[in-house]
This record gives sequence, C-alpha cells and structure tokens, in this order.
Amino acid sequence: MDNRVHNFNPGPAALPLPVLEEIQAEMLNFKGSGMSILEISHRSEAFDEVLNDAVARVKRLLKLPDNYRVLFLQGGASSQFFQVPMNLLGPDDEADYINTGTWSTKAFKEAQILGCNVREVASSEDRNFCYIPKDIQFTPGAAYVHLTSNNTIKGTQWLTFPDTGGLPLISDMSSDIMSRPMDVTPFGLIYAGAQKNLGPSGVTLVIIREDMLERVPDNLPSMLSYKSHADKNSTYNTPPCFGIYVVQMTLKWIEDTVEDGLEGMARVNERKASLIYDLMDEGDFYRPTADKDNRSLMNVTFRLPDEELEKKFVAQALENGLSGLKGHRSVGGCRASIYNAVSLEAVKSLAAFMKDFAQANG
Amino acid sequence: MDNRVHNFNPGPAALPLPVLEEIQAEMLNFKGSGMSILEISHRSEAFDEVLNDAVARVKRLLKLPDNYRVLFLQGGASSQFFQVPMNLLGPDDEADYINTGTWSTKAFKEAQILGCNVREVASSEDRNFCYIPKDIQFTPGAAYVHLTSNNTIKGTQWLTFPDTGGLPLISDMSSDIMSRPMDVTPFGLIYAGAQKNLGPSGVTLVIIREDMLERVPDNLPSMLSYKSHADKNSTYNTPPCFGIYVVQMTLKWIEDTVEDGLEGMARVNERKASLIYDLMDEGDFYRPTADKDNRSLMNVTFRLPDEELEKKFVAQALENGLSGLKGHRSVGGCRASIYNAVSLEAVKSLAAFMKDFAQANG
Repeated sequence: MDNRVHNFNPGPAALPLPVLEEIQAEMLNFKGSGMSILEISHRSEAFDEVLNDAVARVKRLLKLPDNYRVLFLQGGASSQFFQVPMNLLGPDDEADYINTGTWSTKAFKEAQILGCNVREVASSEDRNFCYIPKDIQFTPGAAYVHLTSNNTIKGTQWLTFPDTGGLPLISDMSSDIMSRPMDVTPFGLIYAGAQKNLGPSGVTLVIIREDMLERVPDNLPSMLSYKSHADKNSTYNTPPCFGIYVVQMTLKWIEDTVEDGLEGMARVNERKASLIYDLMDEGDFYRPTADKDNRSLMNVTFRLPDEELEKKFVAQALENGLSGLKGHRSVGGCRASIYNAVSLEAVKSLAAFMKDFAQANG
Repeated sequence: MDNRVHNFNPGPAALPLPVLEEIQAEMLNFKGSGMSILEISHRSEAFDEVLNDAVARVKRLLKLPDNYRVLFLQGGASSQFFQVPMNLLGPDDEADYINTGTWSTKAFKEAQILGCNVREVASSEDRNFCYIPKDIQFTPGAAYVHLTSNNTIKGTQWLTFPDTGGLPLISDMSSDIMSRPMDVTPFGLIYAGAQKNLGPSGVTLVIIREDMLERVPDNLPSMLSYKSHADKNSTYNTPPCFGIYVVQMTLKWIEDTVEDGLEGMARVNERKASLIYDLMDEGDFYRPTADKDNRSLMNVTFRLPDEELEKKFVAQALENGLSGLKGHRSVGGCRASIYNAVSLEAVKSLAAFMKDFAQANG
C-alpha cells in the first residue's frame, strides 16, 4: 500500500488493492494446493472452481438470461474485430457498423479485410467523434449492428442503446463493462478486453447469445470458432488461467464490497465522474472534449488552454501521485480514466489537484 | 516455500521459486512505479524494459542470428496451428507435416481446415507414436516442414532434427524450448506456448526468420498477421503484459543461476531424466512407453503393471508431496514432466518414491 500512486491509466489500469493483496498473499501456494496459481493445471478442480465462479459472477452481475454463454478468450478486443464477422456473418449477410471513434473504425476495417458486406450506418467523425450519433437508419435484415459502448480515446459513451427494431446488437464494451447495470437482451454478443474494468491484459470476456452460436460456420480454425470455446467452457486449449483468476477476484470484489451490485457501482461511477465534470463546467480553464450529453463516465477527456499547460498539468499531477493523465497519443490533451477500481478518494485527490492547478495557472 | 509440493504437471507447470517470490514481492509496486505490473501501461517505459529484456534474453539464450525476430503473442500453440499456414503458405504452395502425436495431428488438421495443400510425409502412428520417424522423404520445393520437437503426451522428443535439404523447418517447441542449446538456422519459425518451460499460460513465444515475414499476405486480419506484431514489437495491441513479465524473469533465472546457459540447462535436464529412466530400465516394474532412443527429457511417460497400480501410484505420490503424475487422459498411464523449473531435488524425491513404490508393490 505504501508508495502506491493514484492510477488513471486508460488500460491496463487500476485494480482493486484488496485483489492485488490477495494475489500477493497466495502467489506461492494457491488455496492450499502447494502450487502457485501460475503452476496449477487448467484441468484441475482448483482451476475449475476459479473459472466457474468467474462465469457465475458475470451471469449474476449482468443478470444474464439462461440463453447467454460466458467465454474467456485471448487476443484482446482487437481479435474480436475479425472473430465477430468471421463467426456471425454469412457470405450473403450484411451488417451495420456505427463509427464513434478509433476502435469502432478498427472493428469496421477488420470486417472489411475479411471481405464482409458491412456498412457504416452512422458516424460522428464530422466533429472528431465528440458525440454519439442519433436517429440511425439501420439496414433491414442486417445480421447485426456493431457499436462501441464507450470510446476510451474520444471520451464518449452510449448512455442508452439505439433501438434497432430487433436486429441483434454487438458491442465492444472493453472500457465500460460492469460499470453500470444494463439490459443485455438486445445484445447478440458483447466483448471486452479485461484490462480496463475486469482484470489484467491477456484475457477477453465474450458473452454470446445461443442463437448467435448457431450461426458459427463449421470450417473455421478451431481456436477462432466461438463454438469450440463454448463447447469446452473456455478450456478448448489452455486458457489464460491467471487472467481469469484476476477477473474472478475483481468481480468478487464488486459483489462483496459494492452495495446493490452494478446499480451501486453505477452510483459510485456517476459520483466520481461528476466531481471532475462539474469542476470543469464551473470554470473555463478545462474544456471537456465530448458533448455534454454524451460524456463518458469512464474516460474523462479534456483540454487545457494550451499544450504547454497540458504538459505541465500531467507532470505536476504525477509529482502529486496522480498518474496516467496524458491523453491518447492520437488526440493529445488530457484524460482521466476512472474505471470501477479507481476509488472515490483517488478522484477527490484529482479534483483537488485540478482546482489548485487551475487557480495557479488560470 | 512452506507446504509447496513438487510439481510434475505437464503445463501449466512448475515455475522457479525465486521467480514466484519476486512476483510476490513486487505485486503491489512494480520497480517503484507505485503500481502493480498488472496495472502499468503497455506503452510505458517500465513495460518497454520488461519486453525488450525478454526479447534480448531469448536472442542471447538461443544465440539467434540477427535475421530472427522474437514475438510474444496470444492464443497458445493451438493458434499457431492455423496462423503458420495462414501466414506462410501461399495458395499454390504445399507444406510437409510430420506426425508424431496429438499436437502434430492437430497442427495438420488446422492447416487442412484452411484448405491448405499439406501432406503428411511421415508418421509414427503405427506404434501409437512411441518413436520419431526416420529417413523421411520431403516434397521438393515444399514451403516448409512442420514438426513437434517434443511430444508432451507421447513422451518422445527429436534429439536431432531431420535434414530437409534446405526446406525451412517450423516447429512447435512448447514443451522443450530453452531446455537445450540448438542451431536455429534451419528453422523458419519456432513457436511455444509459455506454460511449460517459459512462464504462465496466455503468452506464446514466436521466433520468426525475416524471409518468412516476407511471405505474409497483406489481406490478413491484423491480429493474425505476424507482420503486424513484428512491425510493432509485439505491441500492435495490448499484449499479455503479465505473462511477458513472468517469461522475462524465468529467462533471467536461467541466465543468472545456470552455468553455461542452455548447455548447462541441458546437462541438468539430462541428469534429471536419467535418474528416472535408469531406475525404470534397471527393473521391470515400470515400463517407459517411448522407444529408448527417442525418449523425451521433458516428459517421462511410463506404465505400471496394471491400471489399479497406476492409480495407487499417483495417489500415494501425491500424499508424498509429488503432484501431477497422472498421464494424459487420452493415453492413460503415468507421466512425470520435468521441465527446466523442476529441480534436481524434486526429481531425486520422485526417484526415491518410485524405488520404494516398486519394492512395496512389485
């Protein structure tokens, strides 16, 4: 605990301290097995318990209906960009994509690389992705509609999801999964790289509705088929055991310490985000980059009056134990990523620093 | 250290205790960063050092010439089964596969699923894969020859590699990488899931010769292209940071504690294997399953007089702190996996137990 900084990294990102402490405590001997979690067999009872508990917690927290399957895969969200169309889009199908920033763009491009029939039905590129498109016309009969629920780099978030008229939604939720309650039933598939809100890098949560599994063609390489992984409860091959273990403990931390599960988590997250956004709205020193009604509760992106001040801000913050506030290299500016594991206390420290910095430099 | 068992698991497998202790010691604060290794950015200087040090150690230990690149990917060796042909086998090319067991068979099948022109040029299936084929006729002009250097399940190992007349060798070395020195120059590509000799599951070492990179087609999904990963030094997307960190420390453990690098490692591994094989050869209670001149130094597979005794052996061994001795479910029998991190002391304990058990039950 000593000398720990407040971590506002966009991912890999802060993890709950009690989780890290538990990993540390049992690193040499996992639950009396006489081995580290890094050394136990993925076919052992001890690991089965970890895996099944992680799955159960995902189901419970998101209130998943019985026709959803929970998988833990590898390759990050970036691998889902092609796995989704490869598994779910037949040669005569078409799919709709909504472009709300860097990762949406990549998801669309990877489907195009496969030669898929995909269509960008909406984009907020005209104003540098500072908003979420409205009034979208979807393609009748589209196999799915893909969107990115939270845009880590651009600092926007879907607060409600669009009505597709029954077309299955597919969403990259890497940076806001488990940050709020949601109705999963419009979603055919949800994926999330763990390294923002769930655990370390190297494990990807995939939640898939059973009717989507029926679309999976038989002639895919086994490791790329959702079916292989679903049929074997994510142990078709040796899974990323340690990553799954950390996810399990992070979900346990939510269930054990946050009242009302994701409802409670959302309340804390709203409060944290308000602390920063309200402070910025009250003055004119900080300028949030996202439109007010599309602001992300996870990634608060903002500019200062000039780039020199932004550099000074990031550097002075670090001297004050506030780390990871530089904006993504593709957009510049500043960004505070305030995922589930970033405490209210950390955000209060940031807010206090921001107030002081504005006074000293405004 | 207390209550640790001797771990003969086939993978995930034993890791060096000093590595585990170091992971434990710096779990809350990695090298003074104020964050866990699980929380630091993959674009940070701190992680760059880890990654570049891991790459440098692979190059040093295997004495890689300058035209080899070292990558850390995800998806296990199972993902290499299709990535190899997808990246390296053009539509008009053909490739040769040598079948020495379960994993070779899978590698061949995954290439077939892709519709590739692949040919099984040799197999030891006729005697349940208990030997390594000799005098193989390769296809002139084949794009590559694929083999599995060590057969984890069948307990055989290539002690020398076949002369292909210049055709590039490609090898799954998951279960014997870094166990011995080798001449890499006949190899176009080497891959290894980390969870046997290198680190935890969830990271795959890929060593690729630059002329192989030139074969990679442009229209692959980015995450499946060796080029994407080579161009970005394994950080095209967020890599499995923790896994790479453990690999780095495991390689450091070899370099810091084993005299003469892989030459020294091989001497220890030969000594360990001899302890068990010699004991078995001296009596008739234990029956090694592999032909004498093709025995694996990593996975010692053997049978006892009957299955009841095998069960009793595994159970009593466990009571004596010797874990993981059950053979793979597909073949039965017993198996002692004695990878780099399994100490001479652990193997001596196993040998002593085996002697006692044979006396009591022979």
